[in-house]
Amino acid sequence: MKAALLRSFGEPLSIEEAPKPQPGWGEALVRVRACGIDGTDLKLLDGFGYAPALPFIMGHEIAGEVAAVGADVTEFAPGDRVAVYNFVTCNRCVYCRSFRDQLCLNMGGVVGVLDVPGGYAEFLCVPAQQLIRLPDKVDYVDGATCCDAGMTAAHAVDRARVTVGDKVLVIGIGGVGSIVTQLLAASGVEAIAVDIDATKEEWARRQGALHFLRDTGDALVSLVQGLSEDIGVDRVIDVVGLKNTMSAGFASLRRGGRMVVIGYTPERFPLSGLELAQNEKEVIGTRAGRRNDLSRCLKLYATGALRSIVRGTYPLDQVNEALAQLRRGVTGRIVLTFD
Amino acid sequence: MKAALLRSFGEPLSIEEAPKPQPGWGEALVRVRACGIDGTDLKLLDGFGYAPALPFIMGHEIAGEVAAVGADVTEFAPGDRVAVYNFVTCNRCVYCRSFRDQLCLNMGGVVGVLDVPGGYAEFLCVPAQQLIRLPDKVDYVDGATCCDAGMTAAHAVDRARVTVGDKVLVIGIGGVGSIVTQLLAASGVEAIAVDIDATKEEWARRQGALHFLRDTGDALVSLVQGLSEDIGVDRVIDVVGLKNTMSAGFASLRRGGRMVVIGYTPERFPLSGLELAQNEKEVIGTRAGRRNDLSRCLKLYATGALRSIVRGTYPLDQVNEALAQLRRGVTGRIVLTFD
Amino acid sequence: MKAALLRSFGEPLSIEEAPKPQPGWGEALVRVRACGIDGTDLKLLDGFGYAPALPFIMGHEIAGEVAAVGADVTEFAPGDRVAVYNFVTCNRCVYCRSFRDQLCLNMGGVVGVLDVPGGYAEFLCVPAQQLIRLPDKVDYVDGATCCDAGMTAAHAVDRARVTVGDKVLVIGIGGVGSIVTQLLAASGVEAIAVDIDATKEEWARRQGALHFLRDTGDALVSLVQGLSEDIGVDRVIDVVGLKNTMSAGFASLRRGGRMVVIGYTPERFPLSGLELAQNEKEVIGTRAGRRNDLSRCLKLYATGALRSIVRGTYPLDQVNEALAQLRRGVTGRIVLTFD
Amino acid sequence: MKAALLRSFGEPLSIEEAPKPQPGWGEALVRVRACGIDGTDLKLLDGFGYAPALPFIMGHEIAGEVAAVGADVTEFAPGDRVAVYNFVTCNRCVYCRSFRDQLCLNMGGVVGVLDVPGGYAEFLCVPAQQLIRLPDKVDYVDGATCCDAGMTAAHAVDRARVTVGDKVLVIGIGGVGSIVTQLLAASGVEAIAVDIDATKEEWARRQGALHFLRDTGDALVSLVQGLSEDIGVDRVIDVVGLKNTMSAGFASLRRGGRMVVIGYTPERFPLSGLELAQNEKEVIGTRAGRRNDLSRCLKLYATGALRSIVRGTYPLDQVNEALAQLRRGVTGRIVLTFD
Repeated sequence: MKAALLRSFGEPLSIEEAPKPQPGWGEALVRVRACGIDGTDLKLLDGFGYAPALPFIMGHEIAGEVAAVGADVTEFAPGDRVAVYNFVTCNRCVYCRSFRDQLCLNMGGVVGVLDVPGGYAEFLCVPAQQLIRLPDKVDYVDGATCCDAGMTAAHAVDRARVTVGDKVLVIGIGGVGSIVTQLLAASGVEAIAVDIDATKEEWARRQGALHFLRDTGDALVSLVQGLSEDIGVDRVIDVVGLKNTMSAGFASLRRGGRMVVIGYTPERFPLSGLELAQNEKEVIGTRAGRRNDLSRCLKLYATGALRSIVRGTYPLDQVNEALAQLRRGVTGRIVLTFD
Repeated sequence: MKAALLRSFGEPLSIEEAPKPQPGWGEALVRVRACGIDGTDLKLLDGFGYAPALPFIMGHEIAGEVAAVGADVTEFAPGDRVAVYNFVTCNRCVYCRSFRDQLCLNMGGVVGVLDVPGGYAEFLCVPAQQLIRLPDKVDYVDGATCCDAGMTAAHAVDRARVTVGDKVLVIGIGGVGSIVTQLLAASGVEAIAVDIDATKEEWARRQGALHFLRDTGDALVSLVQGLSEDIGVDRVIDVVGLKNTMSAGFASLRRGGRMVVIGYTPERFPLSGLELAQNEKEVIGTRAGRRNDLSRCLKLYATGALRSIVRGTYPLDQVNEALAQLRRGVTGRIVLTFD
Repeated sequence: MKAALLRSFGEPLSIEEAPKPQPGWGEALVRVRACGIDGTDLKLLDGFGYAPALPFIMGHEIAGEVAAVGADVTEFAPGDRVAVYNFVTCNRCVYCRSFRDQLCLNMGGVVGVLDVPGGYAEFLCVPAQQLIRLPDKVDYVDGATCCDAGMTAAHAVDRARVTVGDKVLVIGIGGVGSIVTQLLAASGVEAIAVDIDATKEEWARRQGALHFLRDTGDALVSLVQGLSEDIGVDRVIDVVGLKNTMSAGFASLRRGGRMVVIGYTPERFPLSGLELAQNEKEVIGTRAGRRNDLSRCLKLYATGALRSIVRGTYPLDQVNEALAQLRRGVTGRIVLTFD
Repeated sequence: MKAALLRSFGEPLSIEEAPKPQPGWGEALVRVRACGIDGTDLKLLDGFGYAPALPFIMGHEIAGEVAAVGADVTEFAPGDRVAVYNFVTCNRCVYCRSFRDQLCLNMGGVVGVLDVPGGYAEFLCVPAQQLIRLPDKVDYVDGATCCDAGMTAAHAVDRARVTVGDKVLVIGIGGVGSIVTQLLAASGVEAIAVDIDATKEEWARRQGALHFLRDTGDALVSLVQGLSEDIGVDRVIDVVGLKNTMSAGFASLRRGGRMVVIGYTPERFPLSGLELAQNEKEVIGTRAGRRNDLSRCLKLYATGALRSIVRGTYPLDQVNEALAQLRRGVTGRIVLTFD
């Protein structure tokens, strides 16, 4: 099969012929039909965060169809349309058993990110427990984007605990930020979108943002205060995770408000205990999503509550161009598609 | 009446004869019977945090008896034993109306801290809405300590959301930390107490701590990991708020764990977005308590669930000695008492 | 002033000239501009539930303008546009102090319902603490409907704890049910509206209902199961409270689902412990709203998130016709207006 | 192997020689060391609630040691000490994926209750996913009682959401009620125990109950009001589920209080919508426990937070005597033990 291999950090992927994997016991072979190109891929390329053994096949937003199943797999059959949940959980630890799949203590890898080859290839093999059926009304490209951007957004909004009428600042309008904005708007929340790229304004408004700001630092804080009766916003969802975004987000919160941090970088944010304590602010992290967040996200696409964020597709041969494009900046999502 | 006046930051209080206040409409005159000596008083003396107009009468942990009431005060009568809630709330803002009294947007002062003279005097005048009846079984000194240390501890433990069997790290075993430890032990939680002062070990264990550690930084984190199956603790309650305590507390948390910050200093803590997001940790602030936390705390003393932390009393004349003692370090609480 | 007096249960109101009240200390005189006609008024007329001393002036959905203020009222001045919060709370009991205003243990009356004369008159006098400023963009009739229907709906949806994508059954599409439906739709929830009056279908859909059913009993349950993948709905909000509606609502819930009961009648519902326990269902009551629910509701009208449910207005002289109309059944809300 | 077979409802179990099961793929053979005798067994004998195909081996509170494992079982080995989680969950449905194991939509049986033979035998075979390691400090009899009584109590108290200082009424001091009482006491809650059997008073107090009542109906309600300042209790946990217990429990609740129903019978409780709505009471069901509740319960025994409720043991040959004893009434728990 054709595959794009990461052979060395910082180098372009190498398109090669690789052996087609065979599903072992409890596994399924999936023919990839769509695989999203995501910011985490750039971190992988750069060797920041995760560090898989090389060579490695990246690609962790995968939808496709079941091509074959191994022994003892009864719930799926060839031809089934599926999305792939990335975290290969142990199902036995306290986190697996208390609805925090992505915090599993004995993770058996992350598909396309760590230990388990991903979707930048024509086929991949995963434990059948990773598969979630794609609803009829959801096509492969949107199904793929649910597997990271979508479930991450759904989980983050869940952790933000919003109520109709709230004002929420969303920092960073990439793939995750777009779906976060859509979910907030669908929930009756006033979303204030922030991005340093001014060209994203129209896109952000189309996702449902009521306001768009491109300032940073103190200027941003002061604009946000102006949009929130000088009290501050109820929630901040920071998809970027830079020192500046976290600092401005924190300063934009009203008393008792909550900031949810999704994105991360090597940067740290100097948190003032005085500001935190005296205003009872909350700063909490969120990581990707649980299987159930992926299911919920797929359902929201099926009912039309969420709309596609895909703005371009590439064939596998052009994966390096796609990654370069992502690094330059994309609006919405770009996705690899396979015939 | 006799009163101790703060005439200039950084100077000892001046014991003087001051005019006895008269209760205006809706107010009550309280004869002070006990007034706690608290860390916030040192911040006031030093001019950090709050900055009242001078001269000022400090003292914000007050219990006493009603001496007289102004017009339209029907719920209290001379002789009633009362505790004084510090935050003079507006009762109309969104925080007052959503059970977050201490976040009031139009605070009319904080008794003994800002704008409203406090309990380092024989009498004080406060709006009757500040008074909470002292249960028969609670004496003045313990009632006084509920007015800051107690209600702060009760509110913080509430915000920590603990469950029987949890392991919780408590950093700083002063007045608040002592009651936090008692509340945790009463709730079936395993408290690990931390203090840089090794002489507090016996005291901490008497409050119900299962373990006592006096290390800091990485050494502390590693000891805590050893006490929590290398997973980390469920909750951290940091009563200190130094860069080092917040950093070590944060690193001691298990995935999905929550750190509650009560204490604050001018220091900041370099929060890693990566650590926060990938482990879904939570860092939240808590400020003092609500009227209802004060009531709950008094009830817990009345039922015997909480035990006195008072270890010494001083007359008003020796308030400067008491403050000096606090700065050198006290175990438990010291309280001014009045005949 | 002109007023409509309830002189004897079961009889029409008597339109009479009554003495205009004078605002005492801490009170405000409000010139009524709009007063909603609500189902509770029919209960009052019939002597079910509340039993005020007669003669009594009903009317508890009141908006108007401040005409005069008594001593010590500084936050409001003549000419201010206001809504009237009905529950005259004590502000001291554990419920008042823990954000459950309407459960106050020492309620000083309910405006227009018990002890405090209401808005079926040109003027009324209430403690200033009952007033909430009307946002500029909200007119008197809509402001009035927020004072019971609106705040009740907002609080009920809050207690239901819904999430985008949920399916919720709303039983009874009167005033409260209409706003509940609007709030659910605004929150991204699929509302299934139920009413025995088939003519309400178009109205219910205009409020945002995705489905409308007019069956009852087993037939209703089976239709609801059909609309919810045979699993049942996530939430039921029963605005009616008859034996049949509560029973059908309970049976329509999915495992782990929650039914919120708003409406009440003299009827009881035979709750099966087996069904409740084995399916972990939840049945919870909700009562009117808190001051903060009224504020939130007014804000949602101000931002356009909620739309008017008023479908007819009557002058005070025709209050009996309006009540008769309500008993025959109205779609939306009818409101008394005053020049 | 020796086993006790239920051959016909209403008849004593038949002690027979039965074929020893063989662990298939993914399964484990467990040598039973202790098996609790529980009220559900009486329901099974009587044919109420569950109806397994006969003949059937009951027994669902099982601890033992792994005797052999089937293919692909790597986490357990012969000799491992284990507890058996009863619900054979599908791990794929929305309930399995959202931390509600016992509400699984595709339950593959309940060990010792439905479809899967249980622990009234020398050996049983279960999927390895049903096993949870027994902590060293927990012996087989206590480990067994965690598998139903213990995890049910832990889950119920969790659903009750109690806070230190709360007053909680526990109705029915059998196995579950005993552990509920212990958990409440350990959590700083004042437990008021109720049982119609007056001889249980001393036992209930030993579990930590502060009060013991044996009245029923209105008399009970009035005693409870007397113990709760005429306001009512914060929570009720009804382990019985009769019409009378649920009615009295509901009437004993304070405004805003919550009743958790664990036990069930064929009886129904006439719930007043008026009482429910106007007082914002909550009535919620709870079913057994999740895997994680079982783990938590075992840990609480390991740390000494929970103490044994076992008061008698029987050999398998005397299982009918044990069941007869249970029907006559036992204090604490009786358990079958095997050499």
